[in-house]
Amino acid sequence: MSGLFHDLERSSSGARVAIGELLTAARWNADGLIPAIAQQHDSGEVLMMAWMNRAALEETLATGRVCYWSRSRQAFWRKGETSGQQQHLVEARLDCDGDTLLLKVDQSGPACHTGRRHCFYLRLTPEFGEVDSNPLISPETLYGQKR
Amino acid sequence: MSGLFHDLERSSSGARVAIGELLTAARWNADGLIPAIAQQHDSGEVLMMAWMNRAALEETLATGRVCYWSRSRQAFWRKGETSGQQQHLVEARLDCDGDTLLLKVDQSGPACHTGRRHCFYLRLTPEFGEVDSNPLISPETLYGQKR
Repeated sequence: MSGLFHDLERSSSGARVAIGELLTAARWNADGLIPAIAQQHDSGEVLMMAWMNRAALEETLATGRVCYWSRSRQAFWRKGETSGQQQHLVEARLDCDGDTLLLKVDQSGPACHTGRRHCFYLRLTPEFGEVDSNPLISPETLYGQKR
Repeated sequence: MSGLFHDLERSSSGARVAIGELLTAARWNADGLIPAIAQQHDSGEVLMMAWMNRAALEETLATGRVCYWSRSRQAFWRKGETSGQQQHLVEARLDCDGDTLLLKVDQSGPACHTGRRHCFYLRLTPEFGEVDSNPLISPETLYGQKR
């Protein structure tokens, strides 16, 4: 782990470091990505987890509109560009060892591509997994002919 | 993505699949791991993100005590084993495409190795990152001579 994160963990509330230095020290994986958890800022619901590269994070911080990196499409993924269900940034946070982001967001409508509010609709028990929510909007309505 | 997840996304609330089938279809990465987000069940605070292999998840579901896989130590990491700050499982969830877990937990004391309540204490702005919480307990108290 970078010495910067060791230094920061011993720092008191209010200590600051320039964003460029922090993002250079962050622990991007072999593909240059970091997982980003999106949480609805007021209700506390965890909506989804997706990935960001440095450029996607910098764009998100600059514009306030959440932009991920799509691993399947290998392209920027500006949330809501196709579905219309945008994600606006309220607060971005990096964790203690610089390898995970927490984004507090304001998500309009469903965050999940299935049309459900959030992606975590499979509840697990030791015996089974169970679907426990239904779509708010059908994927066909969300994505139309584009899907 | 596995056909099982495509089938489940079109299923209504209440649809079930055997846990073995679901975990076989889950999208473990090249190291056999899936990221797991830990959220305090009542307050909604996102505490940390760590990794699980299938055996760690099965143990967690069976025992109700959260067990991760430590990538640095390449060993099971039963949260609280060294620090005493245990994590008890309230609910486990898998996401739409089977590659991320959300664990609703009851975390006693600090979840972060720095002694802070949660790991996401670096708030980001376009210009800087800022430490915005202090440890509840010093790491020396948490880990004693073992660290």
